[in-house]
Amino acid sequence: MKAEIIAVGTELLLGQIVNTNAQFIARACADLGVSVYFQTVVGDNTARLKEALTLAKSRADLIICTGGLGPTQDDLTKDALSELLGQQLIVHQPSLDYIETFFRSRGVPMVESNVRQALMLEHSDPLKNDNGMAVGVALTQEKTHYILLPGPPKEMKPMFEHYAAPWIASKLEGVAPLFSRMLKFAGIGESALEHELLDLIKAQTDPTIAPYAKEGEVAIRITTRAASQAEADRKLEPMEQEIRRRLSQHIYASDDVTLEYEIVRSMRGRGLTLAAAESCTGGRLSDMLTAIPGSSAVFEGSIVCYTNAWKHKLLGVPMSVLEGPEAPGAVSDETARLLAENLLKQSTADFALSITGVAGPDESEGKPVGLVYVAVATKNGTTVSKKLQLAGNRESIKLRAAKSALYQLWQLLRN
Amino acid sequence: MKAEIIAVGTELLLGQIVNTNAQFIARACADLGVSVYFQTVVGDNTARLKEALTLAKSRADLIICTGGLGPTQDDLTKDALSELLGQQLIVHQPSLDYIETFFRSRGVPMVESNVRQALMLEHSDPLKNDNGMAVGVALTQEKTHYILLPGPPKEMKPMFEHYAAPWIASKLEGVAPLFSRMLKFAGIGESALEHELLDLIKAQTDPTIAPYAKEGEVAIRITTRAASQAEADRKLEPMEQEIRRRLSQHIYASDDVTLEYEIVRSMRGRGLTLAAAESCTGGRLSDMLTAIPGSSAVFEGSIVCYTNAWKHKLLGVPMSVLEGPEAPGAVSDETARLLAENLLKQSTADFALSITGVAGPDESEGKPVGLVYVAVATKNGTTVSKKLQLAGNRESIKLRAAKSALYQLWQLLRN
Repeated sequence: MKAEIIAVGTELLLGQIVNTNAQFIARACADLGVSVYFQTVVGDNTARLKEALTLAKSRADLIICTGGLGPTQDDLTKDALSELLGQQLIVHQPSLDYIETFFRSRGVPMVESNVRQALMLEHSDPLKNDNGMAVGVALTQEKTHYILLPGPPKEMKPMFEHYAAPWIASKLEGVAPLFSRMLKFAGIGESALEHELLDLIKAQTDPTIAPYAKEGEVAIRITTRAASQAEADRKLEPMEQEIRRRLSQHIYASDDVTLEYEIVRSMRGRGLTLAAAESCTGGRLSDMLTAIPGSSAVFEGSIVCYTNAWKHKLLGVPMSVLEGPEAPGAVSDETARLLAENLLKQSTADFALSITGVAGPDESEGKPVGLVYVAVATKNGTTVSKKLQLAGNRESIKLRAAKSALYQLWQLLRN
Repeated sequence: MKAEIIAVGTELLLGQIVNTNAQFIARACADLGVSVYFQTVVGDNTARLKEALTLAKSRADLIICTGGLGPTQDDLTKDALSELLGQQLIVHQPSLDYIETFFRSRGVPMVESNVRQALMLEHSDPLKNDNGMAVGVALTQEKTHYILLPGPPKEMKPMFEHYAAPWIASKLEGVAPLFSRMLKFAGIGESALEHELLDLIKAQTDPTIAPYAKEGEVAIRITTRAASQAEADRKLEPMEQEIRRRLSQHIYASDDVTLEYEIVRSMRGRGLTLAAAESCTGGRLSDMLTAIPGSSAVFEGSIVCYTNAWKHKLLGVPMSVLEGPEAPGAVSDETARLLAENLLKQSTADFALSITGVAGPDESEGKPVGLVYVAVATKNGTTVSKKLQLAGNRESIKLRAAKSALYQLWQLLRN
């Protein structure tokens, strides 16, 4: 099956936003075994959108559009497809009910234009929007499949994964489906990981293996086509075992989950709890942990001690450690350990984690950007700490420091 | 002038990388006053690349390609354009000299395929590559302008800025450049904003006005063409004033900056400081604030009080307020106020901000997902608080709650 992705939005043509949707869908199509030959971006203009759809229809079996499903006058994707295919737009009543209830519950009057978000083509399947108001659309006409998805990634991605992908898969009869396993790694960078597996990557045929890196994490995906899960398992298992043999100490999951998810899951299952003291990460670690539903059973809280005064007053780090010509300073192993140990004492948590460092853009205490100390204090009285030299800008240093601290914790949890 | 951007690379079609080049070029074109009507992504395939070029030629005056200028067999962009236009490829001697010197200086033998990177079309201008080997190409044939740029952003961006942009500008005689102003809004959603400005949006000719929404923020861009900044200002000013007249209480900046950036900037300038107590946002607010370089002058720290025990022990909220059949509960106006007021007392900050609510996915204390209370306590003894009912999933509720709290603070700062 050949697919074409059309992203709709003048903000893309003006370069105000990056077309991350195209990447997400392209990768998801690859996972489904669907080949993408073209991606197009077109503005909020019915004539040009119809032109793009007509061209795509002439060369693709599946056309996936994102954007232009909102309530405003600029949102024209459903109108354009409706005109092109000669199908009326009709109201999808459950979506309209949801929108009406939403406005009513907030005591805000619903404006007429919001009805547009509940529209679908008369001979289409609705795709449920679990994170917004605009209903998606899937339909087949004259052997061409069309999928319309909303533009905001928070709405588009779950709609694709939960509703569009199964719909597409149902149209893929006769093609052996793809099966894959994802191994997630922590405490190792992408190039080091690739170096360890270079012979396997170079020699790959079936299964294929591919490294991925995103958001401070690296992963290896092993993929094959097979008639059944059992056949796929027979093909995937030896490759997974070989990778585990080489890198087991870095593998924290065999699913596409984050390190913080895995830690929350594991600690929750064992009734363990955690508190944190964050300096240079400024709340990033806490934000990552509390992004996981159910984290409240594990995460007691944190103190974001951005100033030395807070490190001293709330976490009992002596000023003689923090300041002065002979002092180790706020960015030091001593401070990291004291933050973790003192927090552990004043909380009821089983583990206390601390991070202190220089996120940049400027150096601090004469110490270089990227220098970070993390520590984990445990109830049994031991504290482990680690000095890191991280690369990147302020944002990536915050992210990598938080992930590195979680990796220290994960190593303790595993043993 | 109408432009079309063609990004070449199978790795884009597979979703292995994001097409950030298209965004960069699109924005640069907008700055030059060149309108981009389509963006296309095509793989490393001569036939499909020629198809994309032929289509672009039929509807654009300027075609900008990125990618496919490297040394490998997959790098086909120059070959495709050469075939399409019937122009020979010739060696650009200075580029070849550079490549040869590069290999010689490293003591590595140059392989034959590296010569390909020095090729240009016979009737083209070379575009110098200051950060790599592949020379770029600019040419005009039958009134259509073509620009070929390398794919790696670190080579493409400087080549565009230093060589391609001036080349394009030289073809733009007589076209007035674009000028625009960005107004950023807080405390109002995209549809409500558009509703307030609907008559202006519908009647827009010159200047144009367009709403944008991303990451919990909304913006309006006002754009016009003018011969000079002064002429642009004369055209843009009345529209900006009309929008300000209607919505001044929501406009926090006339630049493309975030609300947290504006708050840090404003507080820093006035020597004011801030502390926070976060419950349902779990550190998101602190992470947003500490993403701003220089925030350490403003932000003292925060207590992420995820459990009732932390709210009680670290922030002095009485257990009788937090728990019990008659208690207001952790998610209440009382708790939000106490968190802010007690934090203010125990810190030296001028403002203490608090957030407590239900981020979901499950309700809490019998209260619905999205119910959030924010409060700001100020040194002069007053506390303001606000009850919110936010939409979205756990992640967007955290984001919107943090932005809403910042909006409360911003309102106080403004007065």
